[in-house]
Amino acid sequence: MQDTDKLEIYGKSFDSRLLIGSALYPSPKIMQDSIRASASEIVTVSLRRQSPEEGGGTQFWQQIKDLGLTILPNTAGCHSIQEAVTLAQMSREIFDTNWIKLELVGDEYNLQPDPIDLVKATEILLNDGFEVLPYCTDDLVICRHLVELGCKVLMPWGAPIGTGKGLLNPYALSAIRHRFPQITLIVDAGIGLPSHAVQAFEMGYDGILLNSAIAQAQSPVTMAASFKAACQAGRLAYEAGRMPEKNTAQPSTPTLGMPFWHQTG
Amino acid sequence: MQDTDKLEIYGKSFDSRLLIGSALYPSPKIMQDSIRASASEIVTVSLRRQSPEEGGGTQFWQQIKDLGLTILPNTAGCHSIQEAVTLAQMSREIFDTNWIKLELVGDEYNLQPDPIDLVKATEILLNDGFEVLPYCTDDLVICRHLVELGCKVLMPWGAPIGTGKGLLNPYALSAIRHRFPQITLIVDAGIGLPSHAVQAFEMGYDGILLNSAIAQAQSPVTMAASFKAACQAGRLAYEAGRMPEKNTAQPSTPTLGMPFWHQTG
Amino acid sequence: MQDTDKLEIYGKSFDSRLLIGSALYPSPKIMQDSIRASASEIVTVSLRRQSPEEGGGTQFWQQIKDLGLTILPNTAGCHSIQEAVTLAQMSREIFDTNWIKLELVGDEYNLQPDPIDLVKATEILLNDGFEVLPYCTDDLVICRHLVELGCKVLMPWGAPIGTGKGLLNPYALSAIRHRFPQITLIVDAGIGLPSHAVQAFEMGYDGILLNSAIAQAQSPVTMAASFKAACQAGRLAYEAGRMPEKNTAQPSTPTLGMPFWHQTG
Amino acid sequence: MQDTDKLEIYGKSFDSRLLIGSALYPSPKIMQDSIRASASEIVTVSLRRQSPEEGGGTQFWQQIKDLGLTILPNTAGCHSIQEAVTLAQMSREIFDTNWIKLELVGDEYNLQPDPIDLVKATEILLNDGFEVLPYCTDDLVICRHLVELGCKVLMPWGAPIGTGKGLLNPYALSAIRHRFPQITLIVDAGIGLPSHAVQAFEMGYDGILLNSAIAQAQSPVTMAASFKAACQAGRLAYEAGRMPEKNTAQPSTPTLGMPFWHQTG
Repeated sequence: MQDTDKLEIYGKSFDSRLLIGSALYPSPKIMQDSIRASASEIVTVSLRRQSPEEGGGTQFWQQIKDLGLTILPNTAGCHSIQEAVTLAQMSREIFDTNWIKLELVGDEYNLQPDPIDLVKATEILLNDGFEVLPYCTDDLVICRHLVELGCKVLMPWGAPIGTGKGLLNPYALSAIRHRFPQITLIVDAGIGLPSHAVQAFEMGYDGILLNSAIAQAQSPVTMAASFKAACQAGRLAYEAGRMPEKNTAQPSTPTLGMPFWHQTG
Repeated sequence: MQDTDKLEIYGKSFDSRLLIGSALYPSPKIMQDSIRASASEIVTVSLRRQSPEEGGGTQFWQQIKDLGLTILPNTAGCHSIQEAVTLAQMSREIFDTNWIKLELVGDEYNLQPDPIDLVKATEILLNDGFEVLPYCTDDLVICRHLVELGCKVLMPWGAPIGTGKGLLNPYALSAIRHRFPQITLIVDAGIGLPSHAVQAFEMGYDGILLNSAIAQAQSPVTMAASFKAACQAGRLAYEAGRMPEKNTAQPSTPTLGMPFWHQTG
Repeated sequence: MQDTDKLEIYGKSFDSRLLIGSALYPSPKIMQDSIRASASEIVTVSLRRQSPEEGGGTQFWQQIKDLGLTILPNTAGCHSIQEAVTLAQMSREIFDTNWIKLELVGDEYNLQPDPIDLVKATEILLNDGFEVLPYCTDDLVICRHLVELGCKVLMPWGAPIGTGKGLLNPYALSAIRHRFPQITLIVDAGIGLPSHAVQAFEMGYDGILLNSAIAQAQSPVTMAASFKAACQAGRLAYEAGRMPEKNTAQPSTPTLGMPFWHQTG
Repeated sequence: MQDTDKLEIYGKSFDSRLLIGSALYPSPKIMQDSIRASASEIVTVSLRRQSPEEGGGTQFWQQIKDLGLTILPNTAGCHSIQEAVTLAQMSREIFDTNWIKLELVGDEYNLQPDPIDLVKATEILLNDGFEVLPYCTDDLVICRHLVELGCKVLMPWGAPIGTGKGLLNPYALSAIRHRFPQITLIVDAGIGLPSHAVQAFEMGYDGILLNSAIAQAQSPVTMAASFKAACQAGRLAYEAGRMPEKNTAQPSTPTLGMPFWHQTG
């Protein structure tokens, strides 16, 4: 939970609290327009991209480069520690950054990370000089292990990737927030609607990362603009401090039974 | 559900989809600043205001006037048809408007409207030339009666007033939306958080009306700015059309098992 | 909320808190077996039954009669006050009972009652000597009008009939419970699962009425047995008084750090 | 998901699907009466019990013994692998059973298990001849590791222990059910109400384990009887197969507009 109005990631500050993915858009042009409309300053990309025929060739990388954003390489699709570490090292060279969004698929059913291998790979990468942003589940103890290894940023999921189900377990996400007040927390995966994003910020999360919610909307560019506003709304709501929830109705217009013009103003 | 990007209320158009109340603020200054920060263009007020000592005197009305907004008089605190009709008529004279937000308290427990008297009072006021914005529950049949009488705007609740519990019955609210596509629908009462507001717009509601969520936030002015952004986010989300929700995980980065630089770009 | 362990309906007592419908079963035999397995003592039937070809003929009525249960005639499918009153009067003669489950369809979209006509028809029937069990929504003020007219039993919905969505608005149902401690409250419509039934009892409801949840289960007879047990579980839970819900974990095995055999027992 | 109507745990069959704890009861007498009323056949106990003054002495063990139930020793309160393994070995000797409910506290905040140490300790204990029932979170991959090591039973949580919050993440629990159809799955921790228990069974879980929900109810013995019925209701519901949930209302009494006595029966 950061005190400034900036998103802090390993010593860098960002005005936008939205991190955005680069896959699944209807066209490269819509990708560019959507990312610009989102006002995001960080785009996550994978070296293991789809084939050129599918839009993953040189042209794709030029389009990403043209956006002028901070690149966050990821290890999407990696199933083993070695595979993830190797891809992270390649990504460091090619993108010239120590940042790595560490993804380590643990099961094909829900595509969640393997918590054990995630902790091991994080340790290897931190020792190798990386600044690791681990994609993890909402497991408090795994999060603590990652923090104890030296992670300054955690990226717990809201729901399995691509489902758009939102924050399935707000209780668990809140526990992580309360337990690690100094860590930058970003909800990664599962966000399907701008209201989900606002909820994440209302509970004190520092940022969100998403892809499908924008790329697979009927109008990706409009949805990107929506998420831009949602991130602003959510962060401001957190800073403002909500009204107390009450169990019984409270009149918002206390009355005297006497119209004001009968009163001595 | 309106096709334009404006909120339409009885023939008038508004850029802001947020209607705001004027009670319960820590001070008149904070009320003014909050309402300005909200970008709301419509403020609801009651002639049956609290006593001058509590801030309900001449000065209060001057402050409301200074805001330069469209005034929506309400009948908050009225318990009988006669009382509500009389107050509506007084309000029409004093505020020089045919609009009336009709509130008719039906029970002290949850301060909800009496559906039967609400329909009767609406009929009387419509016949008397008013443009009625009835505060109602999420009862589909009562809503239909109000529409059949001639209401162009309905204001079903999300939750009992002042509770901040959000949208207690999204199913019922959605049913009203689907049943009355031509009517301007505004969620009135119960909204406690900006995420609640976004949800209302995501399901196709045209506007929201709230008071406590801003006035009783720890920082009302900041919360007002949050709701301003939330209304934008929500409406854009509705226009954009959400990604399909899925029950199983979907990779957002389809991979080939082969880094791109091995490919013929 | 009744203090005895019996369900009280207009002066009669029942061991079973489950009221059951007689439609939509795969066969008359399965209907009989299901109703017996449910241990229900009250079955609701409509004179306006489907045609003989569809199982609504003389044989159907004989099968109902063979069950030896208390008959609760209903006015399902009636759309006007006059229609409902007439059907209630015919039902009284034929079934020789003052009881009537008053249903008055107010809209084809969700098949909910028309609250205004429901109140009017209730008044007519009460004045005509009926003991009315009105099927109503979860509207607190409509419920109060029905109570003030003299109803001793209310049957608010959990969700629209046939949806099986359970208790869509527990807050509203709880408000009705707290507001009318002396009235027999039965959730009617919307229950799809035994867990929904248990929830209704946990919040203090006195009974449930359902049809599709059993008749349209894959195995109706087994589901009937499940609901029988669910009603017992739910009522006992209400009587037992739940443990307090807590926001943080509490060990259920407080330990001393010292196995007991090191202790002086 | 077992095909028989018995709960199978490492080759033994049980009629009751409720496993019960032995702590936190108001008195030893109430403990005995509650456990009997629950019809549970398996009671979980910890050697690291409270001091004799608090009811943890010889007398306590005699009372447990008098119940004549299958004993499931647990390692509640253990924070390290070594501690848990040692306590498991002691428990095996004293209770003469290979069963061990493995608990390994990973964090004081929510008292959840440490997933990494849990897997390691499970491996050690399985290799040492134990039949391990691991208390785990709802993490699908950790569950798979435990299954791959040889566990035939898993006990994922519903919510943090002692909170009574029920099933916080039904999606995650369902994923575990679908992924491991052959494993006996028991919800352990978090159940506060009988409706929570029924939900667990409705989604295909084979059993539940609880303690506080009964021991800290206002009337533990009555609540025990409620949970007995809830387990029956839940399992029968699962076997019966629920009605399809629908999004729009469906009449349960299809009508012809013509009372039956006008028809040729």
